[in-house]
Amino acid sequence: MNFASDNVTGAAPEILAAIEAGNGGDLMPYGNDDVTKAAEAKVAKLFETDADVFFLATGTASNALALSAGTPPGGVIFCHTGAHIFDTEGGAPEFFSGAAKLLTIAGDDGKFTAEDLQAAIAAAQPGNVHHAQPATVSISQATEAGTLYGLDEIKAISKVCRTNNLKLHMDGARFSNAVATMGCSAADMTWKVGVDVLSFGATKNGALTAEAVVLFDADMAKDFGYRRKRGGHLFSKMRFLSVQWDAYVTGDLWLKNAAHANAMAKRMAKGLESVPGADITQPAEANIVFPKLPAKVIAGLKADGFLFYERGGEHVIRLVTSFATTEIDVDGFIEAAKKHAAP
Amino acid sequence: MNFASDNVTGAAPEILAAIEAGNGGDLMPYGNDDVTKAAEAKVAKLFETDADVFFLATGTASNALALSAGTPPGGVIFCHTGAHIFDTEGGAPEFFSGAAKLLTIAGDDGKFTAEDLQAAIAAAQPGNVHHAQPATVSISQATEAGTLYGLDEIKAISKVCRTNNLKLHMDGARFSNAVATMGCSAADMTWKVGVDVLSFGATKNGALTAEAVVLFDADMAKDFGYRRKRGGHLFSKMRFLSVQWDAYVTGDLWLKNAAHANAMAKRMAKGLESVPGADITQPAEANIVFPKLPAKVIAGLKADGFLFYERGGEHVIRLVTSFATTEIDVDGFIEAAKKHAAP
Amino acid sequence: MNFASDNVTGAAPEILAAIEAGNGGDLMPYGNDDVTKAAEAKVAKLFETDADVFFLATGTASNALALSAGTPPGGVIFCHTGAHIFDTEGGAPEFFSGAAKLLTIAGDDGKFTAEDLQAAIAAAQPGNVHHAQPATVSISQATEAGTLYGLDEIKAISKVCRTNNLKLHMDGARFSNAVATMGCSAADMTWKVGVDVLSFGATKNGALTAEAVVLFDADMAKDFGYRRKRGGHLFSKMRFLSVQWDAYVTGDLWLKNAAHANAMAKRMAKGLESVPGADITQPAEANIVFPKLPAKVIAGLKADGFLFYERGGEHVIRLVTSFATTEIDVDGFIEAAKKHAAP
Amino acid sequence: MNFASDNVTGAAPEILAAIEAGNGGDLMPYGNDDVTKAAEAKVAKLFETDADVFFLATGTASNALALSAGTPPGGVIFCHTGAHIFDTEGGAPEFFSGAAKLLTIAGDDGKFTAEDLQAAIAAAQPGNVHHAQPATVSISQATEAGTLYGLDEIKAISKVCRTNNLKLHMDGARFSNAVATMGCSAADMTWKVGVDVLSFGATKNGALTAEAVVLFDADMAKDFGYRRKRGGHLFSKMRFLSVQWDAYVTGDLWLKNAAHANAMAKRMAKGLESVPGADITQPAEANIVFPKLPAKVIAGLKADGFLFYERGGEHVIRLVTSFATTEIDVDGFIEAAKKHAAP
Repeated sequence: MNFASDNVTGAAPEILAAIEAGNGGDLMPYGNDDVTKAAEAKVAKLFETDADVFFLATGTASNALALSAGTPPGGVIFCHTGAHIFDTEGGAPEFFSGAAKLLTIAGDDGKFTAEDLQAAIAAAQPGNVHHAQPATVSISQATEAGTLYGLDEIKAISKVCRTNNLKLHMDGARFSNAVATMGCSAADMTWKVGVDVLSFGATKNGALTAEAVVLFDADMAKDFGYRRKRGGHLFSKMRFLSVQWDAYVTGDLWLKNAAHANAMAKRMAKGLESVPGADITQPAEANIVFPKLPAKVIAGLKADGFLFYERGGEHVIRLVTSFATTEIDVDGFIEAAKKHAAP
Repeated sequence: MNFASDNVTGAAPEILAAIEAGNGGDLMPYGNDDVTKAAEAKVAKLFETDADVFFLATGTASNALALSAGTPPGGVIFCHTGAHIFDTEGGAPEFFSGAAKLLTIAGDDGKFTAEDLQAAIAAAQPGNVHHAQPATVSISQATEAGTLYGLDEIKAISKVCRTNNLKLHMDGARFSNAVATMGCSAADMTWKVGVDVLSFGATKNGALTAEAVVLFDADMAKDFGYRRKRGGHLFSKMRFLSVQWDAYVTGDLWLKNAAHANAMAKRMAKGLESVPGADITQPAEANIVFPKLPAKVIAGLKADGFLFYERGGEHVIRLVTSFATTEIDVDGFIEAAKKHAAP
Repeated sequence: MNFASDNVTGAAPEILAAIEAGNGGDLMPYGNDDVTKAAEAKVAKLFETDADVFFLATGTASNALALSAGTPPGGVIFCHTGAHIFDTEGGAPEFFSGAAKLLTIAGDDGKFTAEDLQAAIAAAQPGNVHHAQPATVSISQATEAGTLYGLDEIKAISKVCRTNNLKLHMDGARFSNAVATMGCSAADMTWKVGVDVLSFGATKNGALTAEAVVLFDADMAKDFGYRRKRGGHLFSKMRFLSVQWDAYVTGDLWLKNAAHANAMAKRMAKGLESVPGADITQPAEANIVFPKLPAKVIAGLKADGFLFYERGGEHVIRLVTSFATTEIDVDGFIEAAKKHAAP
Repeated sequence: MNFASDNVTGAAPEILAAIEAGNGGDLMPYGNDDVTKAAEAKVAKLFETDADVFFLATGTASNALALSAGTPPGGVIFCHTGAHIFDTEGGAPEFFSGAAKLLTIAGDDGKFTAEDLQAAIAAAQPGNVHHAQPATVSISQATEAGTLYGLDEIKAISKVCRTNNLKLHMDGARFSNAVATMGCSAADMTWKVGVDVLSFGATKNGALTAEAVVLFDADMAKDFGYRRKRGGHLFSKMRFLSVQWDAYVTGDLWLKNAAHANAMAKRMAKGLESVPGADITQPAEANIVFPKLPAKVIAGLKADGFLFYERGGEHVIRLVTSFATTEIDVDGFIEAAKKHAAP
């Protein structure tokens, strides 16, 4: 069983069906078609505002382009030390923004506070010509640690952004999981608490390959179409991204899939708690669990063929669940862990 | 009927079937899976050499990344004045290469000669520190004019590249159409005549969205994986690109589809020749026809709802056929043209 | 005698004296000193407006930074085919702007017209996402051909810029020569006819190494200080640039030097007219002369040890005069030419 | 008295005299002159090897260009958390390298160890396509903390570089001060201990504005001339940089000036030790002293008109001496400090 990531699985049946259904007929390319216009509008409507929506195919492209929209060449992007944009995107945010400088802020549970942010901004000396100038702040929701920012925490961070004239970006590779857990609306989680631009992921939650950048700031949106093209991210047969998005937000598939993945993570966390010597190191608020396990248990699970990354500290492993994870998968893992933990 | 481009259609049934068949089961992400390894090897084998193959999703990404592999920051890329990379890719080649300078070379039928190239290189003054330094040459095969370079023409160009220590890139968005017409092998068309890197397109010829960069120069390939990731073009669910490529080269689907598109273009060109006042301005050697038509004919065809671009000169239109174009489609267009041409 | 360029000479005595006089005492670095503030104000005052003035040390830096202030990453800069920024600055404009695309416009005497510009803009298809987007227009005054744009010509060009929402840059490496010939004010030549940013050269006209960017558009000026630092062009001992500028505009040294250089060029052009077989190919309106001479005359002059570039066409040479050129130098050249022209 | 930096002073008399002496006569521009060739050779000879030497005018340009020579676009540069290149060069290293990522390493006294470096490299995961790839290591000698790396420490660091296939850059803005203290040769301090490229500063130690990049790796040097031009850092009247360099290395002016500055720093440190409540926080091995002083002493000194930065911790100030600092200046400061420290 593969718990390495939520992208080890294929696509959800609803998404695959949409691809097939959308294949017929001629459509003008590059998004100049009604299918795309309708899907963009449908995603914008989810946010209850007239956001600008751009479809993309990878999370890295989505983050890097979204950040570039708020970051002039050479600007500073603040993010958490564990942020995906800092250490796992191959320098794409720096590349697309024209050599931005990513300055990291430490903090527990994959999060930083408004106070931490204000201190980091001050240290960067805005207005001092010898220093790269602050431009953008990026938070991940859900975080890379599988935790969630509360709405009040986001609001406090966005207030610091406003005060310092910075844009706020949300890396929502697992946005659906966050919304599903918190039970708020997509609007509550974003522009209502001051988010300027969202990278909205679908790939990890059931799409073949579908991401979207949702811009709540019209100024940032103005050049976005050119940026997407210039980055090689404008698809000629755009319909194939559009129909995935249409299906993803139809009948709340995005929430249904995310709720399931979250439930599997909770089940996993709860189950592992009863494994002797186990410790759940961070609250499993989305679809990721970071258990600390005895070395022999980890070794045993690997020998059994379970796949996962050892990440998050000594003897800590990362388990990621998805829309496709079953209770049987989870229970099988827990049972195996218990077996290996037995004296 | 839509003759605007070969990307107005959906995917070929074989490709769609491959997507469905490839959906099941867990696979490690980002191309670290056996399906991808096998598909890469299969494409390399088509070229009868141990080329490095990287899957991508858009033609612009494919061209821009391929060019960047041979062009240091600030280098010069030579291309035809009508090259897609010069005027229709939104500055992506400049962006990915680190501000390369594209210097254009004029020439009939969308092509330039080895002599033209040598003159352009000399004019750029290699070795003079005040000038951007020549690095790469790009030719399109088939060209944007729907014509083909002969193997001898390519060989002569690659010889100039060797002499001047430049890399040779082939924009093969319609590579399949070129090979289908010329009846040579993929190897004959590329490394055997001195091509260092090929952008091999599948999207226009039946894929949903699948392109590949094929590198015959190991040095250029060394960093390509990083470039792809940094550009946001490494797909997490890579399987969905890989299975398209597998299907595309299985049973010569790439040639079969291209041969059909080419035949439709030939049928179109031949049919239009008999329209009073019509003139086929360039040999229709691939799947594009550029007829010059009386203004009233163009107006009539547009009124009938036919879609195409007016491009290539005064009263010249561009008609593109694809794997999905039928004889009925073509004949209908010709009949309509004749009707509007009637006095 | 060296007529290769106006930068083959050292500095004017007034400039050298200013360096010596400015050496004493401690001053805060990086331009945070009163000497610099005063010099900046003095240059701004020359333009009779509250322009933002930034001192630099090379013409290439000055042009590239000035252009970057009006050109977003990937934007288009229009310039003449013979523009220094296009072919003699090693790709610096592309580099500093974040991979801008320079599109060239042909035209006689080193100039293009407002109509040519409008046609070039239309061809670039503003608003079409597949094309790099027009941002900036650059003209050289005096031009690389030694000619001048009339104020009406500049006004017509700037009107096209306004209509198309583009910024207008003037490469004034030889701005002083242009003003000296035309007898207008610095203001007349720039913002009064719609120039947004000027690269104001002093090096070729008597400084050791001193250039300035003068911005008439406050928006473009906002980030210029950061751009200069980021480009490595902010000098710690800024005083040494500032005192050169102070001396350059004191007592109209800039005009005095330029007028002399221009007079020497006129003398040269007039003198050469009487050489059998000679033809002055372009009006010598500044300090450059492009005579066409019989091959044997060119050969003879080279054998005599005269230095100049063969540039501007077959049997055409480029002769550049400077503040330091003497009548004896010019007459000597003319005499030698006559000698070699004798049958 | 101004102890804010070693660039608050003008130029040394020997340098100024060289400028005057070098002013006469015509010379080909852009370094194509014998004065420049000779000066480059003279600097290379100082290093007892056939290094490639390029003259520049600012330290930031020197560092950014030197780093770019060893860092492909998107590569990683490792440096100390207090490195000038990381926090005081306005993002120039990122800009010139094509969006490099600077990863910092902490360490006492402005230095990191070979072990720290090896750990940082391992954490960056070389070979993993999701991470920016390690390329270059930069150390400052003397450091920003006014301390020195021992030759063995540099050798250990360069060994780690070799093992990991990284280039080693030395930021030698105060290289002269380091050599003067250690009494070794320029060669001992650089290529003999594995340094690949040196930013050799002269501005802070007596020049008007003169820096040099010295490349011991011929491969890195190959394109350096183009990089310099493209960055706008190739001077037309190059002679004015060249004569400064000639004077700087003639009669060991560089060492004489540096030894004086160092002696003044030592005198300052020793003198301040006797101030009640004072603590010299870091060994003053070059020309910078970081004393911790009672708040009332700092306030008193500022009130007296002494200039310095409060930097390096709470109640810590930074005092920088130069070739022009006198014993009277230093003693005056010490006396004033004692006065304010008196109960």
